Amino acid sequence: MAKPFVAVLMGSDSDLPVMMATLDVLKTFSIEHEVKVTSAHRTPAATHAYVKDAEQRGCKVFICAAGLAAHLAGAVAGITTRPVIGVPIDNGPLRGNDALLSTVMMPGGVPVAAVAIGSAGAKNAGYLAAQMLAVADDALALAVKEERAKSALAVEAKDAALQVKLKTL
Amino acid sequence: MAKPFVAVLMGSDSDLPVMMATLDVLKTFSIEHEVKVTSAHRTPAATHAYVKDAEQRGCKVFICAAGLAAHLAGAVAGITTRPVIGVPIDNGPLRGNDALLSTVMMPGGVPVAAVAIGSAGAKNAGYLAAQMLAVADDALALAVKEERAKSALAVEAKDAALQVKLKTL
Amino acid sequence: MAKPFVAVLMGSDSDLPVMMATLDVLKTFSIEHEVKVTSAHRTPAATHAYVKDAEQRGCKVFICAAGLAAHLAGAVAGITTRPVIGVPIDNGPLRGNDALLSTVMMPGGVPVAAVAIGSAGAKNAGYLAAQMLAVADDALALAVKEERAKSALAVEAKDAALQVKLKTL
Amino acid sequence: MAKPFVAVLMGSDSDLPVMMATLDVLKTFSIEHEVKVTSAHRTPAATHAYVKDAEQRGCKVFICAAGLAAHLAGAVAGITTRPVIGVPIDNGPLRGNDALLSTVMMPGGVPVAAVAIGSAGAKNAGYLAAQMLAVADDALALAVKEERAKSALAVEAKDAALQVKLKTL
Amino acid sequence: MAKPFVAVLMGSDSDLPVMMATLDVLKTFSIEHEVKVTSAHRTPAATHAYVKDAEQRGCKVFICAAGLAAHLAGAVAGITTRPVIGVPIDNGPLRGNDALLSTVMMPGGVPVAAVAIGSAGAKNAGYLAAQMLAVADDALALAVKEERAKSALAVEAKDAALQVKLKTL
Amino acid sequence: MAKPFVAVLMGSDSDLPVMMATLDVLKTFSIEHEVKVTSAHRTPAATHAYVKDAEQRGCKVFICAAGLAAHLAGAVAGITTRPVIGVPIDNGPLRGNDALLSTVMMPGGVPVAAVAIGSAGAKNAGYLAAQMLAVADDALALAVKEERAKSALAVEAKDAALQVKLKTL
Amino acid sequence: MAKPFVAVLMGSDSDLPVMMATLDVLKTFSIEHEVKVTSAHRTPAATHAYVKDAEQRGCKVFICAAGLAAHLAGAVAGITTRPVIGVPIDNGPLRGNDALLSTVMMPGGVPVAAVAIGSAGAKNAGYLAAQMLAVADDALALAVKEERAKSALAVEAKDAALQVKLKTL
Amino acid sequence: MAKPFVAVLMGSDSDLPVMMATLDVLKTFSIEHEVKVTSAHRTPAATHAYVKDAEQRGCKVFICAAGLAAHLAGAVAGITTRPVIGVPIDNGPLRGNDALLSTVMMPGGVPVAAVAIGSAGAKNAGYLAAQMLAVADDALALAVKEERAKSALAVEAKDAALQVKLKTL
Repeated sequence: MAKPFVAVLMGSDSDLPVMMATLDVLKTFSIEHEVKVTSAHRTPAATHAYVKDAEQRGCKVFICAAGLAAHLAGAVAGITTRPVIGVPIDNGPLRGNDALLSTVMMPGGVPVAAVAIGSAGAKNAGYLAAQMLAVADDALALAVKEERAKSALAVEAKDAALQVKLKTL
Repeated sequence: MAKPFVAVLMGSDSDLPVMMATLDVLKTFSIEHEVKVTSAHRTPAATHAYVKDAEQRGCKVFICAAGLAAHLAGAVAGITTRPVIGVPIDNGPLRGNDALLSTVMMPGGVPVAAVAIGSAGAKNAGYLAAQMLAVADDALALAVKEERAKSALAVEAKDAALQVKLKTL
Repeated sequence: MAKPFVAVLMGSDSDLPVMMATLDVLKTFSIEHEVKVTSAHRTPAATHAYVKDAEQRGCKVFICAAGLAAHLAGAVAGITTRPVIGVPIDNGPLRGNDALLSTVMMPGGVPVAAVAIGSAGAKNAGYLAAQMLAVADDALALAVKEERAKSALAVEAKDAALQVKLKTL
Repeated sequence: MAKPFVAVLMGSDSDLPVMMATLDVLKTFSIEHEVKVTSAHRTPAATHAYVKDAEQRGCKVFICAAGLAAHLAGAVAGITTRPVIGVPIDNGPLRGNDALLSTVMMPGGVPVAAVAIGSAGAKNAGYLAAQMLAVADDALALAVKEERAKSALAVEAKDAALQVKLKTL
Repeated sequence: MAKPFVAVLMGSDSDLPVMMATLDVLKTFSIEHEVKVTSAHRTPAATHAYVKDAEQRGCKVFICAAGLAAHLAGAVAGITTRPVIGVPIDNGPLRGNDALLSTVMMPGGVPVAAVAIGSAGAKNAGYLAAQMLAVADDALALAVKEERAKSALAVEAKDAALQVKLKTL
Repeated sequence: MAKPFVAVLMGSDSDLPVMMATLDVLKTFSIEHEVKVTSAHRTPAATHAYVKDAEQRGCKVFICAAGLAAHLAGAVAGITTRPVIGVPIDNGPLRGNDALLSTVMMPGGVPVAAVAIGSAGAKNAGYLAAQMLAVADDALALAVKEERAKSALAVEAKDAALQVKLKTL
Repeated sequence: MAKPFVAVLMGSDSDLPVMMATLDVLKTFSIEHEVKVTSAHRTPAATHAYVKDAEQRGCKVFICAAGLAAHLAGAVAGITTRPVIGVPIDNGPLRGNDALLSTVMMPGGVPVAAVAIGSAGAKNAGYLAAQMLAVADDALALAVKEERAKSALAVEAKDAALQVKLKTL
Repeated sequence: MAKPFVAVLMGSDSDLPVMMATLDVLKTFSIEHEVKVTSAHRTPAATHAYVKDAEQRGCKVFICAAGLAAHLAGAVAGITTRPVIGVPIDNGPLRGNDALLSTVMMPGGVPVAAVAIGSAGAKNAGYLAAQMLAVADDALALAVKEERAKSALAVEAKDAALQVKLKTL
């Protein structure tokens, strides 16, 4: 049987710096993943072929990043019935507001799971993919819980540091 | 040789009332046209097949209407290199603002010619298609000019009527 | 072991008419689900208790609907590490634009999977939950694929009907 | 009896530079205050515990700063019935517009007193807290009045300086 | 000594239907209040005189409702140093978005406590005023807590009713 | 009789760099003018006194610049019945969009003549004031016409320069 | 010499119901005026001819109403150097937000005096024109002052009526 | 007979850096073109004369770039019946959102083909003009197809490079 993995698609290689946050989270959870630069508009046939092939090879979740009239997530969602997460990229004059609406306002029947514009969304796309895979993977579910606990500790550590800092002001 | 025509695509048959304005303009200029309900998300393969086929059969201009995260025009623009006109439909809570941005903010290399949201845009999609075909059709170019002149006369007639009306107030 | 189910939370019982679309999709796929009216602001303790309990009883996906400064999905996402889908409700003067931003712009580490404002999003929340559960349920995965195929046929049927209708105009 | 104080909560320690304006105003009026980094999403339990405890220890006003889908003020408002002031932070691509709507559009029954996005709002959060405490503290009320008078003098001094400057241009 | 009360100002008598929600909350808590129609633009002198007089007669909190370029709250905040709550009214084509920004984006030194646009905000203006007065009024503080508990019970009752209703669907 | 002049009011001396464009235009036309830093919120009484006095001393047009919840133009328009021009300043996270709506969306009966946000608007405030004074000043009317002609020549000169530049590319 | 008058231009006769508010104000002040339906886009030559002719016949102020990509005011401002007031009409899906930006964001050198979207702006266009003519017409200036005083009395009358009404509730 | 060409109009010479992308595409396809700085507002007569003359000399497509209340494309569309492409320029505080709405929301009868704000739109204006001319020019149609194929190859090359790069991370 095909080995489960996550496919991370980007409309442009210039999205990589932002999307490194996604890859980092996937690595944190040791989730198998592929990265692909492909365009809903410039290479629709290649996008279609890749998604179909990836689904057959065991891709369980697609993460799609795109800016402007961001169609990549929606296009992928029309090809596969695996969950598709859309990351709106902030790379134009409208600051990702166009990408957000193009990603999230999908018509009924073809959902995209939209996350925040830019780096916060890129990070969360990784976490959300992990949560989806964890629905049927108890070890991963535990790892996600532990990561959340760590992030809570980080907030508390920052608060402790702030208390010290404020005394010195 | 294939006979030239315009293809009018709609993401949903509920777009027809608005898009009648497009069909009316195409009829005014006796421009051959086809109408097709097809979805960038629900029937991407059928959309792809239709656009490829239509282009080969002599389609010279595509007009695409869609609402929400309106991907239809962009998707068609990625399949054909004929001009694609996008009409953003006002059918959701954001009043077509989502459809406008999803239609107009196309990345470099794959243009969509966007017109206004809703009925004004639907009408203008027809006129714009006529103008494009008229680039190489002097008779049509003349017809477009005459139609413009008529619309100017209509404004003047409305002004004349207003002058009469205001005297009676 | 706990039986897997989806929990559908609403900030107000006035969200039910819109959220019926979610319930209908869950029923289509015979997905077990619970419905709960609970408020991130008015009943935070009850919300917390319910989410903790539901997670332990086997809830695999949470769907949260709320309007205005829609915090319900984010609040639930802070309590559980199961995937949380947020449906922004269009119930105020800003037409759900406030609810969309309050739902989708989550900070890194606590993802919400946002769908479209209103009825399209409500429907897609159901489909997205089904897709998530189908990651590890091949029968459900097949059912989702079949439902998608049906929706493609529906588009084609509407096109066929349109062709007939246009001939009679 | 518990000594009255103001609690200043921040969703992230990166909000401190902006929120120094709040602390400066509280110091100007010699208002007792605590500062706490705590997150509505990453540390909801710690947030809940702190707010409950602070209220019991005599906290009279809560000031909450957060960016993006800024839930902190709303979450705190759901825990306490003391007045909660929300400062939307401008730390993402939507320039605090998301934080503003997430803070101000609270449903009926759980109010948040929202101030301006960013530094103007941070400053005013301090003034507003002082005004609230001054409702029952005549000395503080007088101090607030004197501060306002000083700020009026500052405007007049700037005008005087401008008159001089303009003569030299 | 002057008896404490809340002053509710409206830019237009057409704001009354929305602002009845404010008055209802004030009555619930038996808070003394006055209602005044006065305009920042059409009757600035009368507004100034009323605010000065009200403050001297013991007004502790001002609530100001206005639409469009809603200046009333800001204008009152410039006259008094008592807390001013601003309710943006949704009475024009921009659906209160103009009123929200005109109310909340106050410059440093002259705060307005903004609440949600329209009816949710009107209700919350009353609660916020009660919370402010309760800072130094333990009986009122208790009443506010009890009202919050009632509103939690109401949510739970709605949930119970929903469970019954869903069984009959 | 009082000598006619234009009063240029700014909410903050930080608006001066942008408003120099207004002063430059007024100087171009040798229009008498005064500049005043005064705040609708921090110095409402001084603003009121200045406007009343200026009107009596012969001020014919008021130009008011302010940012954020920009009330200055509206406040001045409520004091005088001379024409008031409002310049929205771009000095906050919402890039002057708040100032624009606070300036232009005035209720019926108290008009403000709004111009563009920032430097284009500052320049045009000067031209608009000149046009208003020119309604009854034929020499000034002629000067305005000549200035417009010069600006047309400037565009043509830029075009000529461009033609040369393009040949060298 | 030509008799002074105001020209009221509309892009469409469908703007008349809103623009009746302008005409009513002009009648209140017995200001001579003409009304003209003319389009910046459909009848640019007629618009140009009318404006040139009107200016020569003594038109002192132009008022232009238009919706959508509202160019009429800007186009007229490019033809004449008399003051041009622009009224954005709310006649499309974006509720006049497009018309507002198209009217107010004029580049430096060609000002338009923008007023509020829709009926409030239509009324204020009349008042603003009266204020402009009153710069050199003391009788009209007095009439404008009296009208303002009446509008203040109307607010006070509404307040008095409200006081009575509230007692009966 | 007149030789066919494309006219590229700019409202300001400061638009040239962005519009170089248009000229580059036109050069790629060896399309004859003229560049002209002309303003809808500052030089309306020169704009009118140029467009009329260009049309007679064989101009087949007009491309118009402008920022703020961008009227140039609409004004040109009102003079000629050749297709007009509008490029909204991002040169003010509203980041081209004003220019987009002023360009795309044209009333029925006078279409403008709007492309994306800024550089993506400038590039696409060139491609769209090429597509329009290619409607009746098979050699150009082929060249456009080849260019699209090249752009697809470029995406694939970027993907290949990314695969290499990711291995080294």
